[in-house]
Amino acid sequence: MEPKTPTPMEQPILSRGRVSDARPVLPSGFKASAVHCGIRVQKVKLDLGLIVGAQAFPAAALFTKNLLLGSHVIVCRESLKKSGGKVRALLVNSGNANCSTGEQGLEDNRKIQGALAELIGCPPEQVLFMSTGVIGARLPVEKILGALQGLVTHANERGLGDFAQAIMTTDLVPKVRTVAVEERSGPPFRVTGVAKGSGMIHPNMATMFGFLLSDGPAVKDVKQVLRTIADKSFHRLTVDGDTSPNDTVLFWNSRAQSAQTPSPTSEDLLFQSVLDVSQELCRTIAADGEGATRLVTVQVQGAPTEEAASIVARTIATSPLTKTAVHGRDPNWGRILAAAGRAGVDFDPRQARVWIGDADVYSEGKPHPENEGAAHLHLLNNHEVILGVDLAKGTASAEAWTCDFSADYVRINADYRS
Amino acid sequence: MEPKTPTPMEQPILSRGRVSDARPVLPSGFKASAVHCGIRVQKVKLDLGLIVGAQAFPAAALFTKNLLLGSHVIVCRESLKKSGGKVRALLVNSGNANCSTGEQGLEDNRKIQGALAELIGCPPEQVLFMSTGVIGARLPVEKILGALQGLVTHANERGLGDFAQAIMTTDLVPKVRTVAVEERSGPPFRVTGVAKGSGMIHPNMATMFGFLLSDGPAVKDVKQVLRTIADKSFHRLTVDGDTSPNDTVLFWNSRAQSAQTPSPTSEDLLFQSVLDVSQELCRTIAADGEGATRLVTVQVQGAPTEEAASIVARTIATSPLTKTAVHGRDPNWGRILAAAGRAGVDFDPRQARVWIGDADVYSEGKPHPENEGAAHLHLLNNHEVILGVDLAKGTASAEAWTCDFSADYVRINADYRS
Repeated sequence: MEPKTPTPMEQPILSRGRVSDARPVLPSGFKASAVHCGIRVQKVKLDLGLIVGAQAFPAAALFTKNLLLGSHVIVCRESLKKSGGKVRALLVNSGNANCSTGEQGLEDNRKIQGALAELIGCPPEQVLFMSTGVIGARLPVEKILGALQGLVTHANERGLGDFAQAIMTTDLVPKVRTVAVEERSGPPFRVTGVAKGSGMIHPNMATMFGFLLSDGPAVKDVKQVLRTIADKSFHRLTVDGDTSPNDTVLFWNSRAQSAQTPSPTSEDLLFQSVLDVSQELCRTIAADGEGATRLVTVQVQGAPTEEAASIVARTIATSPLTKTAVHGRDPNWGRILAAAGRAGVDFDPRQARVWIGDADVYSEGKPHPENEGAAHLHLLNNHEVILGVDLAKGTASAEAWTCDFSADYVRINADYRS
Repeated sequence: MEPKTPTPMEQPILSRGRVSDARPVLPSGFKASAVHCGIRVQKVKLDLGLIVGAQAFPAAALFTKNLLLGSHVIVCRESLKKSGGKVRALLVNSGNANCSTGEQGLEDNRKIQGALAELIGCPPEQVLFMSTGVIGARLPVEKILGALQGLVTHANERGLGDFAQAIMTTDLVPKVRTVAVEERSGPPFRVTGVAKGSGMIHPNMATMFGFLLSDGPAVKDVKQVLRTIADKSFHRLTVDGDTSPNDTVLFWNSRAQSAQTPSPTSEDLLFQSVLDVSQELCRTIAADGEGATRLVTVQVQGAPTEEAASIVARTIATSPLTKTAVHGRDPNWGRILAAAGRAGVDFDPRQARVWIGDADVYSEGKPHPENEGAAHLHLLNNHEVILGVDLAKGTASAEAWTCDFSADYVRINADYRS
């Protein structure tokens, strides 16, 4: 996972640092903390995390499109509407999804939301409480209530690492990415993203969370910015093609309440930084996919529109045959091209080009067996592998991210009750 | 795989036998043969099969929707158009898909088509020549040409078993289903289907073929009948969600040239029989899916339309998490409901019901853990397992068929080059 190339310093207005996973640094205005409150009884692990703002900051959230909804999706939507998109605190538990728990689940969420709001001293609707983990089981409400005071007391500027641990379920690694940005026309700022997810799993399914925090320039429409960013990042990520009832992405900007009107350049700079962080988080999630041994970046070029490129890229990234071929280190251009061919985007396979790493394996309607050795070595020797298709139907491009499909994926998802 | 219940004899007009796999019986008017001509050099196996009609009979075909097309798809489409939908002979080879072979591939197909037509004594466009197997390699044209005379000479009424063997690639079992039908208003007839397919595989991908032969009553529009049947059968079958560039379904009716106008009842009887055979073939293909240990029948009820029911059923049947859960014999209603919830069909999960075998595992917004034991036993003890969802949104229903997702699927598809 190569970080993005830094924007050269000689550009007049902007300079962006590299997206880094060196330290989990919070943007200013935020504090975080985490605790093991005992939701997951089998395992001693941080399972409840808090991020709290110095005051209520503008935020927008996108939730799963699944019709089966976790309780938090319903309550958080209501709260954001009632608060006018202002968020003071984000509380997240792992180990229990509070999903398919009926009215009781909504009540439990609201009770904890209210208790935390009282401790912090803000209206309940400014608190978002989200859950991930087992579905169909009631939250251990008392355990969570008992842990809130400690979380609030211990929240600090260096608490994000613990928070990232607390939201993990079957993730093997915590997922934090951060970038520092210098802006000539204003103060420097930071964008930090924290995420979790590695497939829908244990015991029933798990969730993708992406929380994007910033102290960057104000943006006029945080929801619109988040939508565009998600379309270019989280919506291009697939581990197994399944969607969880709890998936949530949040964008939360501590400086957005500034009276100063943002310049278009500043807004663009913030947008690019949040996008970079989001895409890096996606790659981290894909790389940590259940049973994964390879991070797969699918590049589609020569498409009529970016949307078309994205559709083709996601279809290839979802194809079990493509993903098993990568697992077998097999430069199987036929499966890549066949997946592209069924994506629903019009193109002529005889004009298309397919590459694996730097090796062209198919073009002008014909395979290039002489390049398959190089393609095989690319799959064999790199943790991040590149599969590319040029549709020869335009100039738009898009990437999608996934992982290879290993026997371990099946084992993880089939065997947990045995 | 239980055969369908026979229609009771007391019905005034019709009686249908059970769909059976007892003997591969051809309808009258057809002969078949097969030969090992050496396309697959590693393995001595029948690899070229012929079905020939006593004369040219009406036929219709449906081909893959993949943009990447095997040569035969292009040539067969042209031929059916030119012949006005009359087919005298069907030649099929396994071991080589003649796909991504450019102009040469089209030429090779036409050359073999022409040679067979000359031997039989019919116009070339009345011969369909189809291929399945490796993509990107040229057909061994001389080997095939050399085998044609023998195939024609030896074609006979009992040759379908050999034909079914010849079209297999990674299939573990040949797939033939047949039903004999008594009709009070006309002579008895037979519908026989022969198919192949078990995923897209070895070495690049394989194909689903379904050939439906009948000597039943004439139908006005064979293409329309075939489309409707495919929508209710082959389009509801999934092994891995990937579509091959060579997928082909053919309906070929030896009595359809009769001058007698078919009665609506006769046509309906034929339709039902072809549908039964097609659905049984789908179940056979699903049961023989790569690495499969279970045939999974997904039942969706309570849908606003049959199309909606079919979409939800297919989404569940394609969900890797559902398929791995079945492999783990895990009555995981959460994964089933979550797959239904993302299918794109509107319903309220709180009103829905989910069952596994005869056990209700979720209804009225709540799981029924007390029934999970029975559901687990159903998954453990049956080769064919039932997953059902009632959407509580209407009265339409549909089934889809798939297999469980095993570590062997990954092994088969990842390891063949290692």
